[in-house]
Amino acid sequence: MEQTGLTSDLARFITGVHWDQLPERIRHEAKRSLLNFFATAISGSREPAIGLALASLREFGGAPQATVIGRNDRLDALGASFINAACANIADFDDTHVPTVIHPSAPVAPPLFALAERRRTTGQDLLTGFAVGVEIACRLGNAVFPSHYRRGWHITATCGVLGAAAAASHALRLDRQKTVWALGLAATQSAGLVESLGTMAKSVSIGSAARNGLWSALLAEQGFDGPAAPIEGSQGFLAVMADAPELTALTAGLGEGWQLARNTYKPYPCGVVINPVIDACLFWREEASATVDEIEAIIVTGNPLLLQRADRPSITTGREAQVSAQHAVAASLLKGKPGLAEFSDQCVRDPAVTALRARVSLMSDPALGVDAARLIFKLRDGKETTIAIDEARGSLARPLSDAELEAKFEELTASRLAPNAREALVEAIWTLDRVENAAELLALTVPA
Amino acid sequence: MEQTGLTSDLARFITGVHWDQLPERIRHEAKRSLLNFFATAISGSREPAIGLALASLREFGGAPQATVIGRNDRLDALGASFINAACANIADFDDTHVPTVIHPSAPVAPPLFALAERRRTTGQDLLTGFAVGVEIACRLGNAVFPSHYRRGWHITATCGVLGAAAAASHALRLDRQKTVWALGLAATQSAGLVESLGTMAKSVSIGSAARNGLWSALLAEQGFDGPAAPIEGSQGFLAVMADAPELTALTAGLGEGWQLARNTYKPYPCGVVINPVIDACLFWREEASATVDEIEAIIVTGNPLLLQRADRPSITTGREAQVSAQHAVAASLLKGKPGLAEFSDQCVRDPAVTALRARVSLMSDPALGVDAARLIFKLRDGKETTIAIDEARGSLARPLSDAELEAKFEELTASRLAPNAREALVEAIWTLDRVENAAELLALTVPA
Repeated sequence: MEQTGLTSDLARFITGVHWDQLPERIRHEAKRSLLNFFATAISGSREPAIGLALASLREFGGAPQATVIGRNDRLDALGASFINAACANIADFDDTHVPTVIHPSAPVAPPLFALAERRRTTGQDLLTGFAVGVEIACRLGNAVFPSHYRRGWHITATCGVLGAAAAASHALRLDRQKTVWALGLAATQSAGLVESLGTMAKSVSIGSAARNGLWSALLAEQGFDGPAAPIEGSQGFLAVMADAPELTALTAGLGEGWQLARNTYKPYPCGVVINPVIDACLFWREEASATVDEIEAIIVTGNPLLLQRADRPSITTGREAQVSAQHAVAASLLKGKPGLAEFSDQCVRDPAVTALRARVSLMSDPALGVDAARLIFKLRDGKETTIAIDEARGSLARPLSDAELEAKFEELTASRLAPNAREALVEAIWTLDRVENAAELLALTVPA
Repeated sequence: MEQTGLTSDLARFITGVHWDQLPERIRHEAKRSLLNFFATAISGSREPAIGLALASLREFGGAPQATVIGRNDRLDALGASFINAACANIADFDDTHVPTVIHPSAPVAPPLFALAERRRTTGQDLLTGFAVGVEIACRLGNAVFPSHYRRGWHITATCGVLGAAAAASHALRLDRQKTVWALGLAATQSAGLVESLGTMAKSVSIGSAARNGLWSALLAEQGFDGPAAPIEGSQGFLAVMADAPELTALTAGLGEGWQLARNTYKPYPCGVVINPVIDACLFWREEASATVDEIEAIIVTGNPLLLQRADRPSITTGREAQVSAQHAVAASLLKGKPGLAEFSDQCVRDPAVTALRARVSLMSDPALGVDAARLIFKLRDGKETTIAIDEARGSLARPLSDAELEAKFEELTASRLAPNAREALVEAIWTLDRVENAAELLALTVPA
């Protein structure tokens, strides 16, 4: 293989990164991402789709080598990677790389933990591999966005499989040539359609990204080869899956700036465009002297994307509620800070919520950013209050604090893990860089 | 789910087809395809890439439920489907659906045999499921060709995964809704880049098409759902993976005409564009009064595609030889009908072959079809002979006879199977429609 070219350059980066090169800010962001990952994976492990996939992988999978997060099950390393990735993403409550809408942790973290159960891996190595995998997935995303996503590619899966392969290549200490092969094997498995969102099929895209990325690196390790230029070749990933890809986005400043710095965590389990709307409702609830019963109408004005994605006045399921601004307004005003229970079928059917939903209307204002919203609360007595949110909670400008991430972890895992296990797991993540065996914390991720 | 729409129409077809509806011509073509499939799979099972993938799947795979063709190994049903598909296609000696260049049997047949080992399946049902799977893969190919292939999609894999899912859905007797889900789960796993051809990575695309198609149907059977319109949806398979897809190609005359009627089998283990060139050389060898030593030059004129794909005067490996018209001419003239040995590294290095290769030149004539060629043999004494081939052996117009397919089977399997096993396997394929248990013949496909 020629030792120049885009893929080869990426492989040199992947093989070369060491913990010492990661800025403190990125080291900490990696831990924050993992805390959010375990929270959503443990919570997601209860979903029916996970049970179905798990049963199937138990039937066709191999020896119980690796931990299934949140459940008393073990699967082979590939199967566990599939399930853990699917769990982390299934409720759309995982992290978001702002420029690309990629949810990077779901495909990248599971292969690293599965490998750590096979060969002893230090916490520092695991965190470094995680930063590397996120970097490759998100840089690919930057290069192909927006044409790739707009066309209908489920970008978390299509770029995630290469991120997973990069992370696993780093963990396996593959040389540069084998890393190029791993990226090629991943590129030829890159798949996932936006059409599948809103159905269980989404979880197959995400799970397969983790599983297939890991398998790519494991095959390459054994000498299973691939093309020399899988990403930049004339019939490679970029040419086939994007229009006018931005090549410099892949390598400019590689190893200097880190994509993890652009990762965010959702405060509420719903579409991110709804976040500022909920913030405004919670502010009103906190500050207004009136009660919800006195509200006659709520006029929500947001970025045009809010209407495109979340204008759903009439809904019947919790899944629809996750993309209904009307529902988010009603639930937040009536119940306070919305969690998973507020986006359940049950809450959707709640008569009070249904009645209040009907009083919400949406308007569009291109002058507002996607993290902003303006809500007018009209009371029956004629009074009006306007609340404007410039930057939603959870945005890059107003990121969740470590304490808020811990609270999210607590909320998502309380019904699944014992209090001492929860506390120990949070502590294990914050101190992961100090342990010799990164896999140890996995024992804390399953019900006692 | 709405019960109208393209995917739903395809699902109705898939669930409804019965052996009685297959014309005798198609029944027989299905057997011919399977004979060719087993020949190339048994032969391909010796390749190094197969050994590597097999070792990995043994490590991460499940119980030994299913036969690995050509080897004394068993794997879980998903893993066996992966390996058997990869084997069948690895040497590019498998079948070709003429309009799309899809190699349909490799992804479609393995899931059916793996399922037949789990639940008793009659030979008639297996052959029907095979025709159904080929139909779906090739109709999708017809709909997306040529933009899809030209862009760099490895069409055998990208369409094959849906063909595999269709075949498995038929075999599992899924209802219409679950068949739509299976097609959706397959669509969201559709992957494979032309960039990977010529490397081991190709086999991951093909193997995964079979494995993932089967898994899609198995998941759907358990109630794992997917989108209502995975193929025709606005961010579904057609919109994402093709420009200006030909929708009518998918459903027009469904169940009346059969794509299997357009399936062909290679007489020689090299690029199909070279076939008429080899035919001409074999004709000269048979008929000319001169010997090869007397040849001063050979001028090959063919369709422009011949030059684009197969103009390789200087080569060093057997893999390159498969796409070198110069090599094919030299090897055919010196050795007679070329088989795998004539496209080996060893034959490429043979001094006599090397010397004769240097005397071959290529010219292009758009008036010639891809199945045609004109060769001028110039002798040292000044004499010239021109041989024109209008339709190559193995083309739709001049298909291999049953006896020729049997001879190909014999050539490819002789070093792998005992004579009585080979004879019994050929007989079992020709009489497959008469057996209660289609899986029985698999015992004949492995070395004693």
